[in-house]
Amino acid sequence: MRFFSDNAATVHPAVMEALAAANHVDTAYDGDALSQSLDRTFSDLFETSCEVVWVSTGTAANSIILAHFVRPWQGILCHEEAHIEVDECGAPTFYSGGAKLMPLPGRGAKIDIEALKTRLAGIRKDVHQVQPAAISITNATEYGLSWEPGEVGAIGEVAKAEGLKLHMDGARFANAVAYRGCSPADVTWRAGVDALSFGFTKNGAMMAEAIVFFGGSGGAGVRELKKRGGHLLSKGRFVAAQICAMLKDDLWLANARAANAGAAALAEACGDRLMHPVEANELFVRLTAAEAAQLRAAGFDFYDWGEGAARLVVSWDQDAATVAPLAAAIAAL
Amino acid sequence: MRFFSDNAATVHPAVMEALAAANHVDTAYDGDALSQSLDRTFSDLFETSCEVVWVSTGTAANSIILAHFVRPWQGILCHEEAHIEVDECGAPTFYSGGAKLMPLPGRGAKIDIEALKTRLAGIRKDVHQVQPAAISITNATEYGLSWEPGEVGAIGEVAKAEGLKLHMDGARFANAVAYRGCSPADVTWRAGVDALSFGFTKNGAMMAEAIVFFGGSGGAGVRELKKRGGHLLSKGRFVAAQICAMLKDDLWLANARAANAGAAALAEACGDRLMHPVEANELFVRLTAAEAAQLRAAGFDFYDWGEGAARLVVSWDQDAATVAPLAAAIAAL
Amino acid sequence: MRFFSDNAATVHPAVMEALAAANHVDTAYDGDALSQSLDRTFSDLFETSCEVVWVSTGTAANSIILAHFVRPWQGILCHEEAHIEVDECGAPTFYSGGAKLMPLPGRGAKIDIEALKTRLAGIRKDVHQVQPAAISITNATEYGLSWEPGEVGAIGEVAKAEGLKLHMDGARFANAVAYRGCSPADVTWRAGVDALSFGFTKNGAMMAEAIVFFGGSGGAGVRELKKRGGHLLSKGRFVAAQICAMLKDDLWLANARAANAGAAALAEACGDRLMHPVEANELFVRLTAAEAAQLRAAGFDFYDWGEGAARLVVSWDQDAATVAPLAAAIAAL
Amino acid sequence: MRFFSDNAATVHPAVMEALAAANHVDTAYDGDALSQSLDRTFSDLFETSCEVVWVSTGTAANSIILAHFVRPWQGILCHEEAHIEVDECGAPTFYSGGAKLMPLPGRGAKIDIEALKTRLAGIRKDVHQVQPAAISITNATEYGLSWEPGEVGAIGEVAKAEGLKLHMDGARFANAVAYRGCSPADVTWRAGVDALSFGFTKNGAMMAEAIVFFGGSGGAGVRELKKRGGHLLSKGRFVAAQICAMLKDDLWLANARAANAGAAALAEACGDRLMHPVEANELFVRLTAAEAAQLRAAGFDFYDWGEGAARLVVSWDQDAATVAPLAAAIAAL
Repeated sequence: MRFFSDNAATVHPAVMEALAAANHVDTAYDGDALSQSLDRTFSDLFETSCEVVWVSTGTAANSIILAHFVRPWQGILCHEEAHIEVDECGAPTFYSGGAKLMPLPGRGAKIDIEALKTRLAGIRKDVHQVQPAAISITNATEYGLSWEPGEVGAIGEVAKAEGLKLHMDGARFANAVAYRGCSPADVTWRAGVDALSFGFTKNGAMMAEAIVFFGGSGGAGVRELKKRGGHLLSKGRFVAAQICAMLKDDLWLANARAANAGAAALAEACGDRLMHPVEANELFVRLTAAEAAQLRAAGFDFYDWGEGAARLVVSWDQDAATVAPLAAAIAAL
Repeated sequence: MRFFSDNAATVHPAVMEALAAANHVDTAYDGDALSQSLDRTFSDLFETSCEVVWVSTGTAANSIILAHFVRPWQGILCHEEAHIEVDECGAPTFYSGGAKLMPLPGRGAKIDIEALKTRLAGIRKDVHQVQPAAISITNATEYGLSWEPGEVGAIGEVAKAEGLKLHMDGARFANAVAYRGCSPADVTWRAGVDALSFGFTKNGAMMAEAIVFFGGSGGAGVRELKKRGGHLLSKGRFVAAQICAMLKDDLWLANARAANAGAAALAEACGDRLMHPVEANELFVRLTAAEAAQLRAAGFDFYDWGEGAARLVVSWDQDAATVAPLAAAIAAL
Repeated sequence: MRFFSDNAATVHPAVMEALAAANHVDTAYDGDALSQSLDRTFSDLFETSCEVVWVSTGTAANSIILAHFVRPWQGILCHEEAHIEVDECGAPTFYSGGAKLMPLPGRGAKIDIEALKTRLAGIRKDVHQVQPAAISITNATEYGLSWEPGEVGAIGEVAKAEGLKLHMDGARFANAVAYRGCSPADVTWRAGVDALSFGFTKNGAMMAEAIVFFGGSGGAGVRELKKRGGHLLSKGRFVAAQICAMLKDDLWLANARAANAGAAALAEACGDRLMHPVEANELFVRLTAAEAAQLRAAGFDFYDWGEGAARLVVSWDQDAATVAPLAAAIAAL
Repeated sequence: MRFFSDNAATVHPAVMEALAAANHVDTAYDGDALSQSLDRTFSDLFETSCEVVWVSTGTAANSIILAHFVRPWQGILCHEEAHIEVDECGAPTFYSGGAKLMPLPGRGAKIDIEALKTRLAGIRKDVHQVQPAAISITNATEYGLSWEPGEVGAIGEVAKAEGLKLHMDGARFANAVAYRGCSPADVTWRAGVDALSFGFTKNGAMMAEAIVFFGGSGGAGVRELKKRGGHLLSKGRFVAAQICAMLKDDLWLANARAANAGAAALAEACGDRLMHPVEANELFVRLTAAEAAQLRAAGFDFYDWGEGAARLVVSWDQDAATVAPLAAAIAAL
């Protein structure tokens, strides 16, 4: 049974149906009706004017936004375990033409606000030192923590005071919002976020992520970055269709709630093994090598997370009922 | 009726079925069974050992191959109307970290071999001038010409003599091969081609192109370029599945033959209007503004190609029968 | 006797004295009094507010200005024989993070204004095609032609109408201005030039070029490009000192006039051999291989310029008198 | 009295004389006799075959070497306070096309060997994580520590075992070697260093640094990186002349010994105030704001180094005698 990644999960039937429904002739690239509908749909969802650009991976979404926000000689403040820092083969630096990631510490992969301020204060304002132009936070974080609107707001205030853009990597934004039960607006633009990578692939789509700029247009250059990166699919309506399907009737929320519920059920079984609170669909648990082997022998698949620890991810197509066997197996260790 | 682009065509039912069939759990990224099968499948097709990397756009395929073949301070010789030169927003320069495209003339968008030799002879071998490291040709060309194996071989010999890599942009490789009736090997590696961008999207897939390195491994760095460009889809099996479906029972050839047949039928109707021989699925025809308006009024959709000319593209889902109305309309002009 | 390049010329005694005079303690980098004086000095010379940044090579000057004017996905229109296109190993593309040089024809290496307009009209305004953001012209041109203010103004009007920045590569700006006898302002900002690479090295300095932005500040980012390119010399006062010495008492004009006078004297001897009018310090002359060999045997050193032609450059430290032997030798051929 | 930077020091008279002596006609760029002599001169000094490329700044030297050693998607391990990490505006990332600096801790700005091994062990060997390709160390370090040959050797062994290139930033290499009294070879290639940025500017030159590749040629591409970066000065003999003058009769060692002696004399006066051992020409001393103000009032100029600390740099043109007033002033605090 799979718990190693929501990247390996299936595609939701509604998304498959949407792909079939999109299989008729329409304009190429992103001139089709589905692509053209996204600005309006997201503007409704986020209760503000949005500019939306679809891409097929989260790495592309993060990189294009960040490249749009910083110049090659500037920097991007992020958590030292952020996906953009450790898992994207340097993509944001590639897209931005050389921008420097400036890693910061913080519990559960949330940037520590004091560390952020200290770092900013320590940068000499001259041409010798790289000057940051953006902050990037991840919601839910690499350790499955969901940001409270107030926490994002605190980062947003620093960003505003320093003239920095604020980006949110929302590869698991749905899980984070589902957990908080807040409005998507509260944890994004109302808290100072300028742009969001809104992920759908892990949550039931096939290859579909939305770059969302809040407050109208993101400005010139974004679509050039996308085209130049080879991300303007010629039959782009098939990406837009996935996003539309995920937003329809709040499928994105329903899927995230299912996964979160599975994670919560597992969390109960894990008890003291938990290394972080479970606020989305990921669990980080203490597990000896012997215990891990025992679970694997019983058919459960997951990642080791360094020595004596493991990561368990519950996907949208799993829920409390389907995770019961693993919960039982862990409880029985 | 659509004749403006094969990019706007539908997806073949067999590809849709393959996507549905791939909708079960498997490893993320490109570790799945379908992705892993590609090297063998293409090696069979091309009668030599191949390394294959899937991507979702032709721009990504071209750019990754070229970036792999040249260093940032080197150049890429190509036709002055090549897609990489005029239609990719500088993507090959972006991916390569700055390589210079070196455009050459030639009829029907085939590089003129004498112009190639003259250009090469004119470059001083010093650090002031950009030294080319690759040649890129397109098959079928931007004007729908299909290369004969011997013509490719002539370019291949120059490439070999000068120590240059030879890339073939095969966005419409299927149409070119279908027209020539040759072995895919004859017009690629046997003629000196080092790597091919083998396009499937225009020919019935949804978003699937294969980077094919001939003669074993393409070497270190290709997969890093792909990941860094944001092209390593997390549910990559859905791209590999499309390619597998297109190769199964030579669907790629059948689709291309259908489109070519439609183009041939149209060509007959166009007679003297043709600006180039029709050797694939594209026609470039002389058409006055009034004639173009008349055809559009009759429901036919196509691109103007400068003044007094138009481009007509027949897609895989159109054939001789379905193009009959346009053929008749043109004949009646 | 040297006629192969003004790059090989000596350094003027006044520059050597200025270096010696600068050999005392002052602030590092460009905080010293000499560096700080440049804005004012050039503002006086150009009769408008200027921001000036010193660098040590013309390639750095051109590249930093152009990188400042264009984004990586944009283009730079220039003559097909411009130094930035053929002799800088791709430096402007490197500094700009990938901008495309868009070469244009034109007699004597002056951009043909009609070719410029045609090229601009032919670019589709979409994300597929690279959109130009700057025009770069060279004065004196690669063939030693000096621009008339009105000619520059015609280019400047196109630039303004299209929203493009206009850059002038002035590696031999002194020779061009000396020939025209015009005000430096007339042939630059008054004609629409936004920034000038003002060269001093060929004209008597050791390694000193000025980036000149007209109309106040060049804007944010220039100094970062310079630092990031490794061009912020720690003992920068020694570059600024050269520039100050060259500007003092119009030494730059005196040197250029000497070289131009030498070139004019040679031109008279060359008669029908001249391939271009001589409007600066370079001559391009028809010369058979046998004639070239004969001159070389007589001790004259120069570059072949393709078959049957040669380039003769007169340097600041040569004048009408010193070129007399070559003039006589050519006349005697 | 200046103690704020050796970048502000004067140029040694022998260097000024060498510049005057080089002021005759010779080939442009780096084809002149002085430039051509460098390989041999450095090969003698380092007791092995060397390829040497002159540049005018340390940032250029570091960046070109590192860009030559790593591909854009790879990383460079360095100390978290290394000049390349904190003081070059991202130049190594710029020149390399995007390589990631991977900072490590360590006392006195020497990379901690255990931290290095731990970091290397923690990197997954996949395309998601940036793989390092080089290690860069600084000698003398940012805190004025000089490496023992054995310490370098320990890093060199790790580099060799992991297939990484080892670069030494020797902006103050002369001071480090002078302190150790070792052979230049012992602390470089014999200890595993592949290339050295050998700095002369801080030590009495005007703008001259040598890129030194040990063991024959550095390989293809270095000179293209230099040209492309705008660092191939057209009158390059004036940089080569400075280097030749610095190497003649071991002027580089004499100058470094003078500066080191001055630093040692100051160190004695500083006693317990010293934050690091003084092994070159820099001192880092505890100093209250009041004490700093008192020294400045007495005419001594230096940098604050965070709160309660200061950096004092002794230059080649200062020695034990000339630093006596500051020594006395500190002793009297």
